[in-house]
Formats: sequence, structure tokens, C-alpha cells
Amino acid sequence: MRQYDHPAPETLAMTEVLRALSDPLRLAIVRRLDREGAQTCAALIGERPKSSMSHHFQVLRDAGVIHTRIEGVTHYNTVRRDVLDTRFPGLMDAILIARAD
Amino acid sequence: MRQYDHPAPETLAMTEVLRALSDPLRLAIVRRLDREGAQTCAALIGERPKSSMSHHFQVLRDAGVIHTRIEGVTHYNTVRRDVLDTRFPGLMDAILIARAD
Repeated sequence: MRQYDHPAPETLAMTEVLRALSDPLRLAIVRRLDREGAQTCAALIGERPKSSMSHHFQVLRDAGVIHTRIEGVTHYNTVRRDVLDTRFPGLMDAILIARAD
Repeated sequence: MRQYDHPAPETLAMTEVLRALSDPLRLAIVRRLDREGAQTCAALIGERPKSSMSHHFQVLRDAGVIHTRIEGVTHYNTVRRDVLDTRFPGLMDAILIARAD
């Protein structure tokens, strides 16, 4: 089954992670994934336009923030916390805990 | 003497701070200011085009990341660490310590 490509941990760039999380909707998605664990794209998209949401998932994936696993027609997303916490210690905690967006 | 406007601490948005720091040059400027203390725009600009650098300073100022004080013809920049550390605990430490841009 086709799967998405995900960047290797050692290639992640801080500036790309910051850029991916600088959008309020993307930040909200990542906060929810971090809090609730794996979520399908369908659950995260809700009533929003699918095309623009696909772009947001792609940005998060390319920056190394989320991992998407394809099972049949369902896409499951998770935050790559272990990878991010190893490469950028303290960053995700500081970003996800803060409530002032 | 005319001075720049700076956003009040309680109005700072996490996403705007992340966006301001998601540019490699802006991040390098902030790291240097944090390490060395107040620096003039002239010292930070170096050989780079002044117009694009003015834009970068403006983005950092508008996001609340730096403060610019005008004295005569000289602009002194500092990182607003106290404000940022109070509003977003741990964020600047995590961003400025990491070396993987």
C-alpha cells in the first residue's frame, strides 16, 4: 500500500518546524493530535474545505511534525513527539502548553 | 524623538512569534541579539540589502520579539526576553539553544 514519505529525523530544520506551527489551524491540529493521539484526516477536517486541509497536512508532514499512515482509505495522523523532542528539546512542550495564540 | 510602536505583552500571539522566527536570517539575528545584547541595525545588517533587512526587523518588532530604540540616527535592537519568557515559558530557550536550523 502506498505510504507518504516522511523526512528523516536528522534532516528536520527548526525553521521549517516553526513555520509549520505558525498557522493557527495547523497549530490547533497538532495540539489536538498531541492531546488525543492518532486521528484520521476526516475527523480533523470536519467541515473545512478538503483541498486546503490537504495542504496543511502536507506542510506539517514535510516539516517533520506529523506522521501519516495510510490504511485502506483511511489516513491516520500522529505527532512525531519522540523525534521532535530528541532533535529540539523542550520546543514542543513550550509550544503546545502555551494557550496564547 | 520618534520611536517605534511595540505590541503590548498581553497581545503577543504565539503563532506570530513562531512565524517571525521561522526565517533563518531572522532567527540568526535574534540569536545574536540574545547572545550579545543590544546591537545597532547597522551592525546586524552587514553587507545585506538594507530594504529587505528593514522588513525583517519590522516582522520581528510586530511579533513582539525585538524592541528597537532610536537614539539620533542609530537604532538599537534588543530581544524582549522578559516579555517572551513570561508569556511563552520555555519557548525562547528551546528555540535559541537548538542548533539545527
